[in-house]
Amino acid sequence: MGNTVKSLAILGSTGSIGQQTLEVVRALSHRFQVVALAAGKNIELLTRQINEFKPRFVCCQDKKISPHLANTEYKLLSLEEMASHPQVDTVVMATSGKSGLSPTLAAVKAGKNVALANKEPLVMAGEIITSEAKLNDAQILPIDSEHSAIWQCLRGETQPADRIILTASGGPFRDYSPAQLEKVTPEQALKHPSWQMGQKVTIDSATLMNKGLEIIEAHWLFDIPIADIEVLIHPQSIIHSMVEFIDGSLKAQLSYPDMRLPIQYALTYPERLANPQIPRLDWNNTTELNFEQPDFDTFPCLKLAIEAGRKAGTYPAVLCAADEVAVELFLSQRIKFTDIAVIIEQVLDEHRATTHPALAEIMEADAWAREKVLHFIKGRDLC
Amino acid sequence: MGNTVKSLAILGSTGSIGQQTLEVVRALSHRFQVVALAAGKNIELLTRQINEFKPRFVCCQDKKISPHLANTEYKLLSLEEMASHPQVDTVVMATSGKSGLSPTLAAVKAGKNVALANKEPLVMAGEIITSEAKLNDAQILPIDSEHSAIWQCLRGETQPADRIILTASGGPFRDYSPAQLEKVTPEQALKHPSWQMGQKVTIDSATLMNKGLEIIEAHWLFDIPIADIEVLIHPQSIIHSMVEFIDGSLKAQLSYPDMRLPIQYALTYPERLANPQIPRLDWNNTTELNFEQPDFDTFPCLKLAIEAGRKAGTYPAVLCAADEVAVELFLSQRIKFTDIAVIIEQVLDEHRATTHPALAEIMEADAWAREKVLHFIKGRDLC
Repeated sequence: MGNTVKSLAILGSTGSIGQQTLEVVRALSHRFQVVALAAGKNIELLTRQINEFKPRFVCCQDKKISPHLANTEYKLLSLEEMASHPQVDTVVMATSGKSGLSPTLAAVKAGKNVALANKEPLVMAGEIITSEAKLNDAQILPIDSEHSAIWQCLRGETQPADRIILTASGGPFRDYSPAQLEKVTPEQALKHPSWQMGQKVTIDSATLMNKGLEIIEAHWLFDIPIADIEVLIHPQSIIHSMVEFIDGSLKAQLSYPDMRLPIQYALTYPERLANPQIPRLDWNNTTELNFEQPDFDTFPCLKLAIEAGRKAGTYPAVLCAADEVAVELFLSQRIKFTDIAVIIEQVLDEHRATTHPALAEIMEADAWAREKVLHFIKGRDLC
Repeated sequence: MGNTVKSLAILGSTGSIGQQTLEVVRALSHRFQVVALAAGKNIELLTRQINEFKPRFVCCQDKKISPHLANTEYKLLSLEEMASHPQVDTVVMATSGKSGLSPTLAAVKAGKNVALANKEPLVMAGEIITSEAKLNDAQILPIDSEHSAIWQCLRGETQPADRIILTASGGPFRDYSPAQLEKVTPEQALKHPSWQMGQKVTIDSATLMNKGLEIIEAHWLFDIPIADIEVLIHPQSIIHSMVEFIDGSLKAQLSYPDMRLPIQYALTYPERLANPQIPRLDWNNTTELNFEQPDFDTFPCLKLAIEAGRKAGTYPAVLCAADEVAVELFLSQRIKFTDIAVIIEQVLDEHRATTHPALAEIMEADAWAREKVLHFIKGRDLC
């Protein structure tokens, strides 16, 4: 506690979570030092970030990057080197999809605190990551609003959750019929009613796959069986999730949907700090909170994720990989919105899983699933 | 923790909270032993309770009680002797009104854990009780559903609440106009929409005085300024209260309105125990939670209580005393429902307060206020 300055490595700094992390750092600049920044292809924004935060280490997927990109000195490192560097206290994993797996593993092996926004690492390799974290005394600090809510509700409790209720906005197509969903365009799917997020997670929110991945993530983060995690549709996204205890008492965490709050909580934990930039809930304007059960038939991705999580082994990795490719195909208008679930189900059905897989087996299943999706759609014009 | 058996003294065992406390004891009988029971005038129920729980000590306001009331041996003690007896671990203060003050003080002076359902002791003498509790290492464990909610939300937090939001059902007359309130009968006022409670607290819920007393109680229990405690009307009584932290994050505690849950939490704390008799919230049937701002003009008792709490000194004691007498007068149909607030306001206006009062000064203010109410209505037929 006190006024110690934390050294941060932000992986995925130009994405939605990365940018909001830097907003928190700006607001609480006396508490944080950005020592490493990593981005994908947005060189322009990365250059500006380098100029502003003057990191010692930089990583960029785009090969054009050079050590003289900005008017400041830095060293080029790989994601894994950055995530495990001795000068880094906390690694913010704001990457997307599979790309976060290897650096997350490097970070926990190096005993770092990992502020985790990227779902796929835990979904794909939860057993390996959580056991390495335990072994190396690394803390995984969830950034996802739902998992942050659960974490906050469990704070100070000496017994595990009896049941977790993950809330879900329901996405932009909450009331759509299957027939309406058939005709959904990428443009419509990218308009989320309550959250501003990256493209992949926005589509996952529309299919409810995102909620399915969160179930598997919660299972690993809080050591709770998949069967004890439920999903509840809550369109206003004010209650970010709930925990039910053995006595039947529930605790919930609430705020406006603003990712800066869970980001800040993970970065300042166990302290809470005032940040005037984060708006406070105004009960004059919040007069109603609604809840409904999810429609598993209309949104089969949720069911597929729960099933993959229950079956465990390499199934969740196959789920992630098939979803990642299917979402890309939908965004490039090669398949319909409803094909996403159809394709993932086919790939899962054909998968022969390995139980308690090693990392190599997970990567193999991932590659197999990606290949399989492309094979399925080959020569077929599904749209 | 573990399987230790707690020895309980239940003061007010035949009232609503007392009976529900005994239901919890029945359900978790391996954890509790009832060593003392105290009741007011319901000899018949007390006799049954003595036969069932075989307490060592008994107290009854009714003079007719004898040491041979039931087919069991017990010793007659005063409330104060019972509350401070060496054989008692936890004192359940399920008394009503002013009667709980002296035994609560005796209990904290003796270093007992006090499970407190009775609001008036803290409202009248919060400064004395909390300082005596600190001095004697006595814990005050709130039983009121709102304060239990706040206590649960603060669990594990290392910083104080930035703001407390006390929820209120709004009572049976939430949507009434002042003109409608004029005509309210005791029978109507005793029908609370969500909670089953004693007569005094049910009327206080209808006037919102109850919420005002809870504000003052929360101030003492959680060491938070009155100005940082807000009231929010929430008709379903599912969210029992909320805490807002300095970072803007809110935590809420939820359950069906069932007093057995906060009673049990106070008695088993820090443990939570399964109790199949307490129904779990079913989200299939809970599809909407509503919130609105309280109407201070239509329910002036809330404003009067906040004002008395802010002015402190002997004002809260005068508030309690005037309210207790006014509620009795309303129940015996000598004054109108709306006269309750009118009378309390008049008494508060005429009061010349003492700051940081000693117990004797609090009792003096209490007696003065009771006398004053009777003086006001003397010779006047207000109904």
